[in-house]
Amino acid sequence: MPYEIPNEGAIDRACCAALDAGDPLAVLRKEFVLPEGVAYFDGMSLGVLPKAASIAVTHVVDEQWGQGLVRSWNAAHWIDAPRRLGAKIAPLLGADGDDVIVADSTSVNLFKLLVAALGLRPDRQVILTESNNFPTDIYVARGVERLRGDVQVKLVSNGELDEAFDDNVAVVLLTHVDFRTSQLHDMAAVTRRAHECGALVLWDLSHSAGALPIDLRGCDVDLAVGCGYKYLNGGPGAPAYVFVAPRHQGQLDQPITAWMGHARPFDFSVDYLPAKDISRFLSGTPSIVGLAAMEASLDIWSQVDLSMVRAKSIAMSECFIRIVERQLGSTDVRLASPRDPNQRGSHIAFHHPQGYAVMQALIDRNVIGDFRDPDLLRFGFTPLHMSFEEVWRAATLLIEIVQTREWDQPRHRRRSTVT
Amino acid sequence: MPYEIPNEGAIDRACCAALDAGDPLAVLRKEFVLPEGVAYFDGMSLGVLPKAASIAVTHVVDEQWGQGLVRSWNAAHWIDAPRRLGAKIAPLLGADGDDVIVADSTSVNLFKLLVAALGLRPDRQVILTESNNFPTDIYVARGVERLRGDVQVKLVSNGELDEAFDDNVAVVLLTHVDFRTSQLHDMAAVTRRAHECGALVLWDLSHSAGALPIDLRGCDVDLAVGCGYKYLNGGPGAPAYVFVAPRHQGQLDQPITAWMGHARPFDFSVDYLPAKDISRFLSGTPSIVGLAAMEASLDIWSQVDLSMVRAKSIAMSECFIRIVERQLGSTDVRLASPRDPNQRGSHIAFHHPQGYAVMQALIDRNVIGDFRDPDLLRFGFTPLHMSFEEVWRAATLLIEIVQTREWDQPRHRRRSTVT
Repeated sequence: MPYEIPNEGAIDRACCAALDAGDPLAVLRKEFVLPEGVAYFDGMSLGVLPKAASIAVTHVVDEQWGQGLVRSWNAAHWIDAPRRLGAKIAPLLGADGDDVIVADSTSVNLFKLLVAALGLRPDRQVILTESNNFPTDIYVARGVERLRGDVQVKLVSNGELDEAFDDNVAVVLLTHVDFRTSQLHDMAAVTRRAHECGALVLWDLSHSAGALPIDLRGCDVDLAVGCGYKYLNGGPGAPAYVFVAPRHQGQLDQPITAWMGHARPFDFSVDYLPAKDISRFLSGTPSIVGLAAMEASLDIWSQVDLSMVRAKSIAMSECFIRIVERQLGSTDVRLASPRDPNQRGSHIAFHHPQGYAVMQALIDRNVIGDFRDPDLLRFGFTPLHMSFEEVWRAATLLIEIVQTREWDQPRHRRRSTVT
Repeated sequence: MPYEIPNEGAIDRACCAALDAGDPLAVLRKEFVLPEGVAYFDGMSLGVLPKAASIAVTHVVDEQWGQGLVRSWNAAHWIDAPRRLGAKIAPLLGADGDDVIVADSTSVNLFKLLVAALGLRPDRQVILTESNNFPTDIYVARGVERLRGDVQVKLVSNGELDEAFDDNVAVVLLTHVDFRTSQLHDMAAVTRRAHECGALVLWDLSHSAGALPIDLRGCDVDLAVGCGYKYLNGGPGAPAYVFVAPRHQGQLDQPITAWMGHARPFDFSVDYLPAKDISRFLSGTPSIVGLAAMEASLDIWSQVDLSMVRAKSIAMSECFIRIVERQLGSTDVRLASPRDPNQRGSHIAFHHPQGYAVMQALIDRNVIGDFRDPDLLRFGFTPLHMSFEEVWRAATLLIEIVQTREWDQPRHRRRSTVT
């Protein structure tokens, strides 16, 4: 079994090198563009560029657009891209190919599915979610609340979720992996609990698809969305996706009815007739260039065993934590993520009172993670291209920066717009 | 004055060559990729590829994404792209730079603005539009109608519009240029009429921006949307744009509230605080690659005089009609567009009982226009790169195909998905 790390004692550089030597996923590293000298721990914000995505984009732009022009809608199968890409994402979600489609942004898709879910539960008034859900998901829910007038968003803390279910809950909206702490929800248990009280469940998979195995079918999930630009390496602002369980597809009315969701879009008829299948969740014309980059990225996944990805991710995060805590204890940095790796997604977070400056100092030394208010250092693990050597390098650099107070410089403390 | 065509008599090849020789826009042709041997009359479906767009996309993918990674949100100014591109589109619309922003698809933007407009007119129940409006615009309005329950879409024919205004109309939704006939609305008059009865007006500029001068400010327009992939050459599925008159920006509540529309998106606060300005019309993360292609295209427009574009477009369409009608009369093909060029957008349409097959025969001979049910041949004029020689070639080929019945072959009659 690969990725076995010592139960006890220090993780040293030689140990990391040995883990790399035995890594069955190491062969995939050559598929990605990795900037010289950079150790990239921010794949949970923006995944790295697959070489094939660069080639695909050039081909779509220069050949399909430049030479094929409007003919490419048919000849280059642009029109089928949302379905085709959905079918390629589906195995990563434990879903059937016909139940996933690529469309719009995660926010727009969340809006569509929340409104549609409320339509399926007309006698219920509550959208239940967590106060530590990804903020934009809460913003979308608030928008639906204001739009509808008769619906209420109920925000609860993580520990209160179980008791918050009642027969007024129409839909539960949760992000599978907490973007701050990396806390992983028990998808099966929460979905079961929602169904027991008659509610639908809508999972945001942005921080879990491509990071760990997901079993939407096995968990009997109703609805899900997710973004393409994190662990799926689809590129900045990549198109997002929608999953709808087959039992709901024919009945869900999504509100942004536009030509791509029409049963026969090229009839240009005056009446809207929704497609019978997952295509009804499309709205306007998708970015063909964005889809091209993402499709090339998704094709890499067809060769990948997700359980191996998960095993490597856990081994990497355990190594990182062990190296850091052995040197720093938990006085200067304190783990914000669950101690049990099975309770985490594919990133870890540490508290540090000067987290922003510490992260800037790391980035300045070419180890790129990110910072989230108020004090969180985040490090993401993307096993398709990362090495244990990089884990070693990042963890030891973090130790050095904290111990020497290298972070304590005005240029590291200065806040910029985005981190 | 360039683009003067003889008042009387035949337009011959020499006349077209002379028009090309005196064409001040001809210098721009080299900015575009034009497939060898193809005369492209479908820029009103998908604009051709600007050479700069290809270069920009490669740069964004290989350098900004591949090398810069997540740092490019700041370093490469990705975060400002929606505002920056909006400001570049604004002059084409007769709008100020702060009043236009690039976001989502036209359909999603229409949805957002329709819902927001209804919120500004809470005592009114009607969305007024035309039955020959672009079908997807009607679909979006129908979606809002179903979602709201208390709102009604009123469809009228073009000639009935004036009488359909009453004090129950909340918003009038119209496409500036009819996608079939090319009939151009009088934006000033319709907007005035709407305002007289207290309604807002929402223009879809997809078929007019970049094709003719527009004066949103001078016409006192409330709201507008449009797509980037037609006359703006932003590429297949290019991002769309939103215009909101400054007087409405602070009061309009758009329903898809998500992080990019937040006043401080990187605070990740639990409460949604809409940006005070046009940024509040953003929702999720935009396609950075799509924005890059479009920005390169928009930069070409900074050197272009729109009144010259309009003059050339009119001269081209007049030449096309004169050549065709002189040979064919109006028995085989019949002009579906207004006879007065000032009543048209930048395409023309002809009826032909076998229009689909005729267009396939044209495409087979490398003259690309398109077909719209039931019997319309459409030819678009995109003056930035088209020549009068191409007009001559297309018109004479159309004549030949109709006169010889070259269209009358099974392979031309066979319908495909997209045209």
